[in-house]
This record gives sequence, structure tokens and C-alpha cells, in this order.
Amino acid sequence: MTTRYVYRFGEGRADMRDLLGGKGANLAEMSRLGLPVPPGFTITTAACRDYCTAGRQLPAGLEDQVEEGLRALEQEVGRAFGAAQDPLLVSVRSGAAASMPGMMDTILNVGLHPAAVEGLARASGGDRAFALDCYRRFLQMFGDVVLGIPHRLFDEVLTAQRERRRVRHDRELDAQALEQVVEAFLELAERHVGRSFPTDPREQLWLAVRAVFDSWNNPRAVVYRNLHGIPHDLGTAVNVQAMVFGNRGADSGTGVIFTRDPATGDRRLYGEYLLCAQGEDVVAGIRTPQPIARLAEDLPAVYDELLRHARTLETHYRDLQDIEFTIEQGKLYVLQTRSGKRTAAAAIRVAVDLADEGLITREEAVLRVDPEGLGRLLHPGIDPQARVDVIATGLPASPGAATGRVTLDADEAAARAAAGEKVLLVRPETTPDDIHGIVAAQGVLTSRGGMTCHAAIVARGMGKPCVVGCEAMRFSPDGRSIEVGGRTISDGEVLSIDGSTGQVIHGEVPLVQPELSPAFRTLLGWADAVRKLGVRANADTPDDARRAREFGAEGIGLCRTEHMFIAADRLPVVQAMILAETPEERRQWLDRLLPMQRADFEAILEAMRGLPVTIRLLDPPLHEFLPDLEELRETVGRHRRELEGAADAAAAERLREALRQAEQLLRRSRALEEANPMLGHRGVRLGVSHPEIYEMQARAIFEATAALVRRGVDARPEVMIPLVGMASELDFTRELVHRMAAEVMAREGVSFDYLVGTMIEVPRACLVAEEIGARADFFSFGTNDLTQTTFGFSRDDAEAKFLHRYLDLGLLKDNPFMIIDRQGVGRLVRLAVEGGRRARAALKIGVCGEHGGDPVSIAFFHEAGLDYVSCSPFRVPIARLAAAQAVLRSGGAGKFIPSDR
Amino acid sequence: MTTRYVYRFGEGRADMRDLLGGKGANLAEMSRLGLPVPPGFTITTAACRDYCTAGRQLPAGLEDQVEEGLRALEQEVGRAFGAAQDPLLVSVRSGAAASMPGMMDTILNVGLHPAAVEGLARASGGDRAFALDCYRRFLQMFGDVVLGIPHRLFDEVLTAQRERRRVRHDRELDAQALEQVVEAFLELAERHVGRSFPTDPREQLWLAVRAVFDSWNNPRAVVYRNLHGIPHDLGTAVNVQAMVFGNRGADSGTGVIFTRDPATGDRRLYGEYLLCAQGEDVVAGIRTPQPIARLAEDLPAVYDELLRHARTLETHYRDLQDIEFTIEQGKLYVLQTRSGKRTAAAAIRVAVDLADEGLITREEAVLRVDPEGLGRLLHPGIDPQARVDVIATGLPASPGAATGRVTLDADEAAARAAAGEKVLLVRPETTPDDIHGIVAAQGVLTSRGGMTCHAAIVARGMGKPCVVGCEAMRFSPDGRSIEVGGRTISDGEVLSIDGSTGQVIHGEVPLVQPELSPAFRTLLGWADAVRKLGVRANADTPDDARRAREFGAEGIGLCRTEHMFIAADRLPVVQAMILAETPEERRQWLDRLLPMQRADFEAILEAMRGLPVTIRLLDPPLHEFLPDLEELRETVGRHRRELEGAADAAAAERLREALRQAEQLLRRSRALEEANPMLGHRGVRLGVSHPEIYEMQARAIFEATAALVRRGVDARPEVMIPLVGMASELDFTRELVHRMAAEVMAREGVSFDYLVGTMIEVPRACLVAEEIGARADFFSFGTNDLTQTTFGFSRDDAEAKFLHRYLDLGLLKDNPFMIIDRQGVGRLVRLAVEGGRRARAALKIGVCGEHGGDPVSIAFFHEAGLDYVSCSPFRVPIARLAAAQAVLRSGGAGKFIPSDR
Repeated sequence: MTTRYVYRFGEGRADMRDLLGGKGANLAEMSRLGLPVPPGFTITTAACRDYCTAGRQLPAGLEDQVEEGLRALEQEVGRAFGAAQDPLLVSVRSGAAASMPGMMDTILNVGLHPAAVEGLARASGGDRAFALDCYRRFLQMFGDVVLGIPHRLFDEVLTAQRERRRVRHDRELDAQALEQVVEAFLELAERHVGRSFPTDPREQLWLAVRAVFDSWNNPRAVVYRNLHGIPHDLGTAVNVQAMVFGNRGADSGTGVIFTRDPATGDRRLYGEYLLCAQGEDVVAGIRTPQPIARLAEDLPAVYDELLRHARTLETHYRDLQDIEFTIEQGKLYVLQTRSGKRTAAAAIRVAVDLADEGLITREEAVLRVDPEGLGRLLHPGIDPQARVDVIATGLPASPGAATGRVTLDADEAAARAAAGEKVLLVRPETTPDDIHGIVAAQGVLTSRGGMTCHAAIVARGMGKPCVVGCEAMRFSPDGRSIEVGGRTISDGEVLSIDGSTGQVIHGEVPLVQPELSPAFRTLLGWADAVRKLGVRANADTPDDARRAREFGAEGIGLCRTEHMFIAADRLPVVQAMILAETPEERRQWLDRLLPMQRADFEAILEAMRGLPVTIRLLDPPLHEFLPDLEELRETVGRHRRELEGAADAAAAERLREALRQAEQLLRRSRALEEANPMLGHRGVRLGVSHPEIYEMQARAIFEATAALVRRGVDARPEVMIPLVGMASELDFTRELVHRMAAEVMAREGVSFDYLVGTMIEVPRACLVAEEIGARADFFSFGTNDLTQTTFGFSRDDAEAKFLHRYLDLGLLKDNPFMIIDRQGVGRLVRLAVEGGRRARAALKIGVCGEHGGDPVSIAFFHEAGLDYVSCSPFRVPIARLAAAQAVLRSGGAGKFIPSDR
Repeated sequence: MTTRYVYRFGEGRADMRDLLGGKGANLAEMSRLGLPVPPGFTITTAACRDYCTAGRQLPAGLEDQVEEGLRALEQEVGRAFGAAQDPLLVSVRSGAAASMPGMMDTILNVGLHPAAVEGLARASGGDRAFALDCYRRFLQMFGDVVLGIPHRLFDEVLTAQRERRRVRHDRELDAQALEQVVEAFLELAERHVGRSFPTDPREQLWLAVRAVFDSWNNPRAVVYRNLHGIPHDLGTAVNVQAMVFGNRGADSGTGVIFTRDPATGDRRLYGEYLLCAQGEDVVAGIRTPQPIARLAEDLPAVYDELLRHARTLETHYRDLQDIEFTIEQGKLYVLQTRSGKRTAAAAIRVAVDLADEGLITREEAVLRVDPEGLGRLLHPGIDPQARVDVIATGLPASPGAATGRVTLDADEAAARAAAGEKVLLVRPETTPDDIHGIVAAQGVLTSRGGMTCHAAIVARGMGKPCVVGCEAMRFSPDGRSIEVGGRTISDGEVLSIDGSTGQVIHGEVPLVQPELSPAFRTLLGWADAVRKLGVRANADTPDDARRAREFGAEGIGLCRTEHMFIAADRLPVVQAMILAETPEERRQWLDRLLPMQRADFEAILEAMRGLPVTIRLLDPPLHEFLPDLEELRETVGRHRRELEGAADAAAAERLREALRQAEQLLRRSRALEEANPMLGHRGVRLGVSHPEIYEMQARAIFEATAALVRRGVDARPEVMIPLVGMASELDFTRELVHRMAAEVMAREGVSFDYLVGTMIEVPRACLVAEEIGARADFFSFGTNDLTQTTFGFSRDDAEAKFLHRYLDLGLLKDNPFMIIDRQGVGRLVRLAVEGGRRARAALKIGVCGEHGGDPVSIAFFHEAGLDYVSCSPFRVPIARLAAAQAVLRSGGAGKFIPSDR
């Protein structure tokens, strides 16, 4: 028996995708459902495979089977393929199992030749221009794709003709002009391929089929398959389908509908149509399409039928459908259906509605929504109705929109904000010195940096809109203005940014405030019922903590104490503490910090009452709290020059004193300077060398806890030691924390529970996790630093210098600071989980790095057996959904519709 | 049956160390050999254990057994313990299985009391001063150790008495004076403990024994055991031994001998003695001891007997012995024998001679020499006969001695050396900018930095003497002199340093050149026969390569190409290449570097003909080749100020141009600046972003190879890609290297073999070693960087800022940059070896980090299954020996005498 290579549309099914390709299976499924699909047949992927392996030989039996398919097609439509009278024309389309750019796509109107053109014109009520336009399109597509004639040559002919006729669009060419075009095309083809253009419909068909087969192995397709890991031996199917024309008069037309509103998810037919038009007319925008509701008046029977088919398809595919249709002389044809693209809001609404309607399960509803798309629902956005003046575009680093007066300096930003102004901090890039400016600003805009530069990370952490890497922006030498696209924007002018799109907009923009819709709340509730991972938030302030709680955070996974050190009223005390020459002197300054920290902790612990709050002891190197070295050097240089030119002895004395102080500060800053601060004197290393700092912090935490407990507030502090790489470091600091707790309990006469755990953020901690686990109540992965040390990448340097090249060249598939590197960093995470749990089966393990809010990474953390993820408050809903999806995908993906629609 | 707690010396053996302690087992062994050991007995460690666990109760049976031992002792010496007539006196000494400071050590003359003192005086020919001196020593030791009377109180009595008698030493006190001292001691004791001093010999003995038992748990001993991992339940033995006196007349005496010369290893009795003297007199240096040969004249029979015993002990212990003896009235007693301390040269000579004499095997000889001690045999040293003026001491960072004119600036050092002067580079610390100065200097001296700071590592790599962290040194503000210990040393004055001791010496010193002695060569030959690890050298120049070969290197494991970039004639070209604005411009400069690099490689490959040479492509970040940013900023500032005060238009024009150039350099340097250069744009990342640099280097390597092959030279290049963390990086660069090789072979018409491999120096490379191994011909661990990234330590910062504190607190046992961290870094190494060999069983694996020359680390690399280690040329002999010891220790240590003598 010969292999079966040809399936008529009615013979296939949706699940025959591998054999019929995606397009073929879809056409077959719709036919099987009884929808009015223009008839046709599919040549299977097996035919393509056999053709390729046989050295481009058509496999035995294929020709007969295609001939048979063609005969059946002719019978069904009652017209003969390529006949001179009312000819049957067909389209030839490729269609692999996976959608794959780079392959030959479509040839329309196969079967046309001069005689048939006249037949088509007659059948179309004498519209020669229509028939000739069909013909020139066929010549163009076939010439380009099958005969390999450069596209540009056809364009040149058309352009010349348009110029001669003084028209702007090809559609304005009349029959006479089109005849000349056709003539020129035929000559062009003959000149180019050395023979006359094939006029035999069957020859045309076979040449087209072979071209589709061959395009499976064209370079772009091969590269695409390599990049996406698609096997090279799948082959593509070929779909041969009868042409229908929506431009055959007033009872013909074409349109696109969505079964629900793709912007809101509302349950109403949505879409538009044009009568006497072809598909591309709808897109081209020359005529204004009508809203679909109008079709009920124009062609009520067709409208009713369309409504019925829409319902059938949505019910069948169990999702919002995007349906293309054509009406030919009053008869409706459905050409394509697919899951409709939709906004994030609509995605949620549709998923929840479909579940409520019983079309899908709640689990499926949870899987239907892409968590990454939810970001913009959680931040204020620009009113989509507003007209805005976009002057540049950078990278969308932290979602949400913000408007404010351009302020080019962090101190200035803090000062203006304190005076009640709304400011936008605009910098070449930001450093830890600018934190107070970021805190004060509505949003941040930088000309340098990538998605994980300092500004991006800090802004995301704070949920503040941020656009980075806006390279079109130039700073004036005097530092009082910026230049963007030829326009000069002075300090104090109003700009807006959209951190979801990267747009920089001139002037103010109207904002719309975000809210969790009822559907969103419902969906998250369903997700919560499914997920195994806990979701906490990274939050440093009571405000953040409250917001996190509103978004469903089940605790705080990372409260950074250093942000508390930067506040304007504290920084001088912190600096004095650092500059202290003796531990005693340092202790005095720490005593002044203690009540401030205690108040911070009390407020946060209270905001999170009943939920755990993980507080990380001081992490950054001390020099981050001192002025920049370069600045200090300049100050010293200035004082020296001023001293040389001092007017009198008194001035000299004053300047000498200023110089002395500046020199001392410079000396101390120099002593603290580090070659590689990322790998330097920070984290637990500070706790070991300056235990008095950690003692102050632990005391502040426990005094806050004691005060709350006495007020009946359920405070649950978890003290976290950063950057531990050796069990001995944890022994040293844990003892210190326990001592402080015991002292506070004894002095205050209350008792309370608390945990002491560690961040796992250097490779060594993962390698000796068993030893560390024996001493820790919990682990929290700091995957930012762990990624830096595992790769040996300094994030800031890598983003600025070479990471883009790695991504461009495909040496890296994803930025490992955004999506966790499973193979390297992930292996360390698994080693640490195994080691830690070996030592202590009940060890609580979480992650508080940036990856804790990334859906792809969350799936990994679920697999690796973590207890919770912690992310910025604004990403908590995203994480809740992603955590549920991780369960559903790993548990029983088979039960559900795959989400890669 | 009761436990046996007491062993007479003759009853024990050397292997009963656990039960009898080290000292007891040794005394027993010597007695068993028939040597004249003063008789006595040992109370076992078991007695101490039982005493401690029973709450300081003497265990049942102990008292009877001690009484019995005492009776046997009295019988053997024919005197009664503590009798009034010619009393038997004993010493009581602790002696655990491991030597352990902090425990009670010794009480001499136990058994004395007023009546016995008189008896002793009579028995000593009426020498009352001798007898009283014995008594006052007993009172002092017993009072201090057993009765807990502060030592200082006894000293005060003695001081007062000396002052009264106007003598300088206690030994000058006569009988009358000593009688007053004894009187005062007895009063002091009575006042302090509230009862009269114990005069009953047996009471004295038991109090002393209990004191020894109790000292097992005194705080210093407990801390020591904690630090050294010694179990707390071992207990100590107590040795009770008859006293003998070398000061009983002219036929008495005392001395110390070595069975061979401990300085040279020569086979001759070595040592000295004093007649009519006690042990401490030899040490005190009041009388000059006689060379041992003189004893043959003084007491010929005793000398012959001593010679015989020396031979017996050396043969028995199979090693050079350090023997203490006493002669009492013509009778020789051997008091102690132990392996004698010796110089590195002697250690080698003795080991080889003992093996040649058949006393030990060759394998044992190999195990007998501490590789770490060999360093100073391989470098020029200061003539030990010379008198030198040491003005300060720093850390001995790179062995060998050097003399030169103090030069405080690297440029100046290079200039002076070029002019033929010998210079010593003296800096607060060095940076990569100083390399040319280090190359030019005889040695390097810095005031800052630890054993693994930049200067130390670079100097060790070059085999150049270096002293770092010499904190006593201050630099004058004008930078033209230094101050050390009050002395000012001007630029240009001559200083010397000894990198083996850390000494800084004023003026010139006579040097002795190192040579491999015949014994050293023999021993290394034996080591080579045993070891499994290959030993290569890290060498960047033909000179280094030749030296490495002389020292037995079997190839070059690391040839750093960046050092070739720094030479004075190349740096400007390198800088121009870096500053190039386009790849084309860069390529032009690279074309100028190509012939230089080719010549370098040709010379090195030729020097190593027949052996592999691993050449690492460019590794450091490009900014390391540019001037320091701070310097550039100052230059720009200076030009700006000069421009303001320009005299005329021409000068202004000239200054404007200089300013423009400086600003351009500053701008480019700023663009290259990195927050964490260690984790930045370096290694393979350079090769990916600037493939033209790696192409030039690969071409230079292969053109050099082709030229040599044509000349019939067996050149074996191995191209090494640094800092690889992903298989894709290796794919990218390997393809580039193979392409260059193919091009050169085709153009030159020759063919040659070469390898392409990778350094393994970031954790990720270890974690994905299987993938990387599938693409590499070899791995070479860069354990310096791997240690930095695994711990998250920047070496420079860690050493300067916090590592010392970790070592002081015991949070780290060793500096992980000197001795490999088995637990963390070692685990990654093992993962990488497993992964790499899984992909390619024959994968060649080596190490070229600093650890490659460290004996402890070498043992680990042997265990981990590496193929070779690579170290600085001067450490090659050390590595050869250490590699052999690793085999012997891991293979069959049981056959050999353990080396921790």
C-alpha cells in the first residue's frame, strides 16, 4: 500500500497537527465542525520529509493523490481548476506543526493564465481590473517565491506604472494600466528564467508545492529551527485551498471578528468588516471598515450565521477566537480561527468568565493568563485615550507612568520634593549615592544602563516607574539641561515617562489609576488554592509593607536595613559612625541610630502583624555611605587652590581647617575604597569586623518586637545574615543575635519567638549548605549576587559592557539576571536545598533576589522545592499566579490546554 | 582485676604512646634499648582519664601501684625517696600523646625537705649551696604550680636577695644567701596557703601528680585542644623519674648532641657540653660550652659510650637524633632523644644518606623532607656569615635576597634599570600599572599588603624577592624618601631585602647563589619515580622558561600574554589599539603587535622544544593598560589651569590641544572603567567582544609554530581561553582559533599539532563542566579566581580589609588563597573533573593558580585526579617533591614513618 499523503479538509482533525501542520489541522477541524470553509486539501508533512530525504524527488503516489484531491475539489465547487471559463483558483500555503518564519508562506490565485483571466473577469460581472489585479498578484508572488526573481524588479515595474498614471496606490490602476503591468511582469519573468511564464495550471501547482517543500530547508528556516530547538526532520505540510473573493460585488465582503472584546474581555461580538473588499483592504485603511454590528443591517442572514459560527468556534476551542471571514456573493466563508490576542485585563476577564461558564476549569483559567503581562495592571498607566508627544524611547525598566519636573541632581530632587514639587529624576545613570533622589522622585529616567542597572533595580524594588538606557538623551556640559532629538529640555520643565513601554513624553499626561478588578481577585484566589510556594514581598518601609499585604503578600522576605541608613536625617549619623576612629566612638554614634532603627522595625513589624518579616542586617560596604571619592578629591583640590589665594590670615586659617577636614574624610574614604566592592568588605564580613553594628541592629529589632508584644501585637521577626559562605561566620553572628535577644527579653521581661537564618548568595554557601543548614533556621537565596559570583559577572559592568553582545550572538539565551540560569546557578540552588535539608529536614527555604518575581524563574524555584519566593510588592500578584501555574504545569499539564497558544 | 596504671620505664614501648604519652613512651623505648636512662615509671593517661571522670578522685589501685613503683625505683638506685641521708629525688613531668602547651610541665627535685637538703649536701661532697639551690628551685616550682602562688612573689624574694648581695645572677648567691631565700620562700608559702610547706616526700609526690592531672583541663590546654582538634578525653600521663645531677663535681656534666650536623647534614657527631654544670647552664650562656669532640679528651670512656648510644638511637629511630645527656660522677645518663631540627639543606642530605645507608627506603627519604622548607634553597640568599643592619621587618612574600638603589616610582625604576643600575622598587603597594617597574627591579618592598597582595603574587610569579606589609615604613609627603625606624632613606640609597625572612637591611649585603646540591638532585629523582602528577611551570619569558626547564618543569602550564603587552616598546601600541575608535583602526595597531607577539612565542616555544607550552590569550580588562584614572583627571585639571594662565595665543593653542588629547584619553578610560573589574570585561569576554585581538594572538602563536616546525623544532603550543563559564563561549573562540590555525597552515604550507583548551576559574564552569569538556582538549584550573568567586572574596580587598580578622578569630583556618579550600573550592574542582571526564575520558586537566605550588594543595590535586600542576619556576622542585609525597601518603602511608615528627 502506498502512503497516504493527501487529506481533504474534512478528513483531518485538530490533533493531526504533526501530520497536517498547524494550518492544515485547523482548516480540517473547522471543516469537520461543519463550518463553511472554502474546500481544499492538505499534502502531509510526511510527503515533504520523503521528498527531502529522496533528494527532492516527489514520492511515489503523491502526484496521483494530489490529482485526486484536485478532482474532488473541482467537483465540490463545481468549477474546473484553471479553466478558461469561471476558473477554480487555489491558494498554496505552507504550514508546519510549529509556526516558523522564514519559510515560503503563500501563493494566491494559482491556476491563472491569460485565458482564465478573461474567464474570471466575465464571472465577476465583467470586472477586468479585478481579474487583472488577481493575475498580477499571482505573477508577482509566483515569480518571487517559485522562480526566484528579486521582488524589487516587480516593484520597479509597478512604481513606474503608478508614476505614469500619476496615482499613489496600486489599487487605483485601471484595467489598461494593469494590462501593461502584466505584460511587463511576463517579460521580466521570461528574461529572468529563460523561458515563458508557466501557463499550465497543473505545472503552476506542482512548482508551487515543490517550492514549499524546498523552503523547509532554506537558510532562514534552518537558523530559526536551530535557535528554537525544533528538529530538522519534521517537514512542512502544504495546503491547497479554493480561492474565494470578497470583492465580487456589493453582496461580497470581508472582515475580522473577536468572539469577545479583546480590550476588556466583555462578552460581545467585536470586530469590523468592509463590503466589496478583500482582506488587505481592511488592513490598508483606505476605506473605513464598519463595526461588525452594522452587518446585521447590511446582510442579516450572513450576520446571524457569523454569530452562530463564532459561538461554535469559541465553544469548540474553549477560548476567545479571532476569526477571519469572507463573503462571496452572499455566501459566508470562514477562513481562519485562532486564539485572539487580548489585553492583560481581557485575558483575566475572559479566563474567569470561561471558567464560570463551565467551558474551562478553574485550573485552566489560571493557566490562561500570562503573569508577565499583568505588570501594567498593577501600576498607574497613561490614559490610553490621551494624545501624547513621544520624544524618545528607552528601555521599559520599571512599569507605570510618572510625570514631574526634570531634575538633574539627586540632592535637588530631594529638596524640591520636600518643598512639595513632583519631580522626575533624570541622570546619565544612578549610583547608591542617588537613593534619596530616587525615593523623592515620581520616576527615574537615565541615558545609560540596561534592564538590570542600578536605577532599574532600585526603581523596581520601590515600584517606581523607570526608563533607562534612553540613549537619544544628551546632557549639556553645564548640567542645566538635556537635549533629546534636537529639543532642549531645561531643568524644571515637565516630562513624563511610561515605564511599561519605555516612552519619554513631553509635558504632562493624564494617568489612570490601577485597581485589581473583581475578575483579577477571583483568578488570584483560584491561583492561591493551587500554588505550593508562599509569596512574600521585599519591602523596606511600612508603606511598602502595607501595599504588599494588599497585593496578597504572606510576609516580608527581605527588609533591607541599609535603605533606612540613607534617609536625610540619618546619613550624617551613619557617616560619623563610619568615620569613628575607635569602637567606643563608633558605639556612641550607633547609640544614636538605635532608636531610629527601632522605630523603623516597630512600624514594619506592626504593619505585617501576624506575618513573618525577614530583616537583613547591614549588607553594603561602608564606603557606599560616604561621599564619592572623586568629589572628595575635587573638594580637597579646590580648598588647596583657595588657600593659595587666601585674602588674609583669617581666611587662610578658615580654609586650612576646611582643608584639614576634607583631607581627613578623603583619607578615610580612600582607606575604605575597594578594587571590587561587590566582592569586598560587606555583608557578614562587616558583622565580623564591626560586631557593634550588628549588635545595634539586632537590639533594635528585638526592642521593637518586645514593645509590640507588650502591646499585644503578633510580631514575627526573622533575622537574616547576608553573604554567609562559611558555617563559622554564621556561628559568630548567630551567637551575637541570640545574645542580644536574651538581653532584651531579660531587660524587658517579655518573651517572643524569632528566627535567625542566612542568605545564600555566594557559591561556597551552596557547596557547604549542609554545615550552614545545621546552624540556620532558614535559607533565603540571594540570586542576584549568586548569579554574579557563579558567572563571575559584575552585573553593572556586564550590562554596560558585554552582556548585550552575548545576547546578540546567542551565546546567552536570556539575561541571567532576569531569568534564572537553571544549568549553573540552578544547580547550585539544588545543591544548597539538598544540603540544607539533609542537615535540617524542616529548613525553611526562600528566595529574595530579583528572580523571585520572574514567572520562568518561579517555575524553577517550585521544582527545586523552595518554600517561598519574595519579590517587589507590585509583583506579588504576578508571583501568586506564576506559582500556581508552576504547580499545574509540573503536576498534570496533560489535563490542560497548553498555554503557548 | 584492677586496671594497670603504672609502667616502669623498661616495661613500655614506643608504640604505647596513647597510654604512656609521648615522653613516657620515649623513655620506655630508650630503657628497653638498654640505654642508661635514669630509672622511673609512668602513670598512664588512663589514670588521668579515670581521675577526671570520677570528679578528681584518684582511681582505686593507683596509690598502691605508685607505691610499688617507688619501691622498685628505690631498690634500683639504692637510695630511699626523700631520705635524710643521700636522698632519692624525683622529677614529675606531664606527657600527653600529643605535645600540648599550656599544661603543667615539670617539677624537679620532688622529695626535698630541710633534713634531706643536708643529706644531699653531704652526698655532694659538702656542697651546701648546690643542695640549697636544688631546694629553692623545688619550692619555687612546687609553690607556683601545685600551690598556685604567683610566680612573681618568688621572683621578688630572689631579686631582693640579689640586690642585697650585689650579684647579677642567682647562681652567684652563696649558701648563706640561699638559706635566707629558702626561709623567705617557706614563709611566703605558709602565708599564702595557710599551712606550712609540705615536707612529707609522699605528700609532695601526690600533690604534684594531682596537679599534673588537673592541668589537663586548665583553660589554656582546653583552648589549645579546641584549636587543634585534639579530643578532650585523652588525658595526660605523668612521668616520675630519678633525678641525676651534672653539677656534682668535675666528673659530672651535661650536654646536647646531634647525631649528624643539623646545618649541613654531614655525618659527624655535632654538639657541645659543659662539665660540672646543669642543663640550664648550657643554655644560659654564662660559661662557654665545649665542642663535643673535646669530651674524648676530658672523659674518653664516657665519650665512647655516648658515641655508641648515638649510633644505637639513630639506627633505632632511623633519623638524625637530638640527644640530651647528663654525666653524674663519671656515669653517663641519656635523658631524652628526639628527631633533630635541621636546615632544609641538611634535611635533604640526611634523608638521602639514610636511604643510601639502607636505614630507610627511598620513599621514606622522599617523605622526610618538608617541601615548603626548600624555598630558600632555590633563591639567592644573604651570606649567613655576614653582619647585617636590619632596620625593619615585613612579611616574607617571595623568597630570595636582593640589593638595589631605592626607587619610589615604577617608571623611574624602569628607566634606571635600562641605564644599567640595580634598583629596588619601594612602594606603598603595587598595582598592574607598576608591572614594568617590578620587571626592572631586583626586588620589591611595600609598606602595605599581605602574603597574597598584588606585589607578592607578581613577584612570586617572577621569582623575584619581595617583602610586603612593612608597616614601619613611611613615605615622605614629597615622595622623595622613606622613613624607617627614625632613619630617613633617600631615593637612590642602597637597601637590601630578604624575601625569605621579611628583613629590610640597610646597605648592600653579600649574597650566596643557590645551587641544587647532588643530594637534592638525587632526592628529586626519587620523587619523580614516585609521583603521578606532572609538574609544569608558569613562565612568560624565554628566561623563565629555561629556568623552569633546569628545575625540571615538564612544560609550561601558563604563559601569560598580557605581560608581553606591558614592555616599554609595546605599551604605546597597546594603548593606541585600545583607544581605536573602529575595528579597522584597531586592526591596524594589532598588525603592529603581531610580529612582536610572534617573536615572543617563537622564543618561548623554542626554549621549551619537545614540551607543551600552554599560552593563555589576553585576560585582563583593557583599562589595566591605560594610565590611572586619577592621574588622568589630574592631568586634565592641570592643563585647564595652565590654559587659564596661558601667556600668549600660541601657548594657549598648544595647551588647548594638550587638554583635548588628555580629555579624550580620560573619556575613553572612563568608558572602560568598571565597578568590579575582577568580574568585568576580561578573559573570554574580551575575545567575544573584540575577536580581532584573539585572532591576532592565535595567528602569532601559529606563525611562530610554523616557523619553528620549518626549522625542525618540535613546538607544542596549547592555546588556552581564560574565564570561560559557558560552552557557547568556548565554541565561539575555539572556532576562531581553529580558523587561524587552518589559515596559517594553508599559507605557510606546514602542518603542526596544537590543542585548544580552557581555564576553569568561575564556579559556573565547574557546574557545566560536562558541556565545556565536550569542547575542550584540556582544562586548567585557575584556582586564584575560582577562590575569589566561590567565596565572593576580592583577594586584594579581603587581604587588606578583613581576612586577617577571620584568621585571628579562627573563622578561617588557613588563608584560602594560599592553601586550597577543600570543602568549597575543592568540591567545585571535583565536580569539574567528574563532569569534564564524563564528556571526554582522556581530558587533560591541570591547575595553574598559585595553589599549584603549594604542597598541601598539591596533595588535594593528586587526590582529585588532576594530570599536572603548574607553578612558578622556583617552586617546581617543591612541587615535584610534594607530588611524590601525595602519592606516598595516599597510597600506603602505613609503610612509612609518619612525617609529622
